[in-house]
Amino acid sequence: MDRVRVVHTPLEIYSQLAHERSAGRTVGLVPTMGALHAGHLSLVKQAKKDCELAVATIFVNPTQFGPNEDFSKYPRTLERDLEQLDNAGCDYVFVPSSEQIYAPGHSTFIEPPSVASRWEGEIRPGHFRGVATVVLKLFMMVPAQVAFFGRKDYQQVAVIRAMVEDLNLPIRIEVCDTIRESDGLAMSSRNRYLSSTERARALGLWRALQGAQELVQQGERDVGKIELAMQQVLLAAPVDSIDYARVVDAQTMEPLQQIEEVAVAIIAARFGSTRLIDNLTLYRP
Amino acid sequence: MDRVRVVHTPLEIYSQLAHERSAGRTVGLVPTMGALHAGHLSLVKQAKKDCELAVATIFVNPTQFGPNEDFSKYPRTLERDLEQLDNAGCDYVFVPSSEQIYAPGHSTFIEPPSVASRWEGEIRPGHFRGVATVVLKLFMMVPAQVAFFGRKDYQQVAVIRAMVEDLNLPIRIEVCDTIRESDGLAMSSRNRYLSSTERARALGLWRALQGAQELVQQGERDVGKIELAMQQVLLAAPVDSIDYARVVDAQTMEPLQQIEEVAVAIIAARFGSTRLIDNLTLYRP
Repeated sequence: MDRVRVVHTPLEIYSQLAHERSAGRTVGLVPTMGALHAGHLSLVKQAKKDCELAVATIFVNPTQFGPNEDFSKYPRTLERDLEQLDNAGCDYVFVPSSEQIYAPGHSTFIEPPSVASRWEGEIRPGHFRGVATVVLKLFMMVPAQVAFFGRKDYQQVAVIRAMVEDLNLPIRIEVCDTIRESDGLAMSSRNRYLSSTERARALGLWRALQGAQELVQQGERDVGKIELAMQQVLLAAPVDSIDYARVVDAQTMEPLQQIEEVAVAIIAARFGSTRLIDNLTLYRP
Repeated sequence: MDRVRVVHTPLEIYSQLAHERSAGRTVGLVPTMGALHAGHLSLVKQAKKDCELAVATIFVNPTQFGPNEDFSKYPRTLERDLEQLDNAGCDYVFVPSSEQIYAPGHSTFIEPPSVASRWEGEIRPGHFRGVATVVLKLFMMVPAQVAFFGRKDYQQVAVIRAMVEDLNLPIRIEVCDTIRESDGLAMSSRNRYLSSTERARALGLWRALQGAQELVQQGERDVGKIELAMQQVLLAAPVDSIDYARVVDAQTMEPLQQIEEVAVAIIAARFGSTRLIDNLTLYRP
């Protein structure tokens, strides 16, 4: 590694980037929890395309995990992450410790916007509060003009967009397409939890989303029918459980009866002990 | 008025100030709700002393008022405010409308730090949530290096300081001394609500604080005794009711038994329908 600069403290990353900004350079930020895959790297590449400097952050944020979630077993692969970032042309990577992000006595949080209330927000109470808080903090520590997020976390992107607008955060949000394995499974750091049979069953997510898209292409506008078809595909995979498999408004993420213009199909389901999410935007023909 | 520039939209103030910052100028921010008095103007003068440019904001923030509070009758004296800011050497004043600060659908708020939970936070539920949210928004819209607040709102300052630290906001908070009338009453936009007899009675706040200070100077360290003495002075004023009259830790604002190093006496009391607050830092001799 001869290129990417690894920075560990908020003070150092802020002063480095403030210096770069005052020299007129544009900065693109890619916040990650590490365990990087081709999806993350596509964000870094997009940042390099749009901005002069790409800055990645690696921080497994404890406040966005529930007490029974996978915080402690979340994959940590720092050496490999740094290599991949270096190869992708990343300029800086900020790797803070938990204590540097949440000092003793930390007690200010972001109460996330209303788009956080359903789906992931309902099933993972406190998740978006933790996400919004750490993302705002990272935006303050890393003074970038643009931040890049993957569409795979559709609701997360909606939450961050609304937060940026509501709180007047001086940053632009760019959303990049989901990167998929050759068979269609969305890239996720959690895919490595899957056994080989679970991995095969997990393809049900993509099949269900594609089925929804085909129905819409054929003229189906009844959301109830599309949701039923998605459930049938998932149960045939088989999934071990479905948290939700819905077609919702692409902006507000509120439930729909009929597809008017653009909607999004969202799924969260479990394979063994692994919970995966995916989504697909549905356009009327 | 030939000097102060009045700006009405977030976009305009941000781009003006971003331009000033990129030209290397330092910016000091003084957030106000208007109805300006000598206390506010002392903040503007301090901003001009410490920074090249002073920016005041005037916005009566609806989200920090409770349903039975004085939002609608809060004094609005824009013409006079602008004159006073001009005379004080203020460079920009940002006067947004309510719709520009809270667009339809706005739903992201700041969950304030733990120092917000007692005293004003308990008596005015949601007050500091509204304060923290609008202050963070103003910090984002007005890219200043320093923001100036008056010590009269002691707990507000503690909340804002903790928020800035917890959320890594790239701004420094400067606290300026309370400005008092010649007889000791702390300047407040709400003093104009007082009838002349209430005005005379309101001096009980300052007398109670001074009494607390004298006791500490005389070596009293028992907080219970000091609080009792403050209550007696207030009841003699007479106040119409006491929300609190306490001696608390100067950092955490938690209740104290004994004064160790530095403490702060805080009072909130009512005179007729007018609620006033004041405080005094107590140093051991």
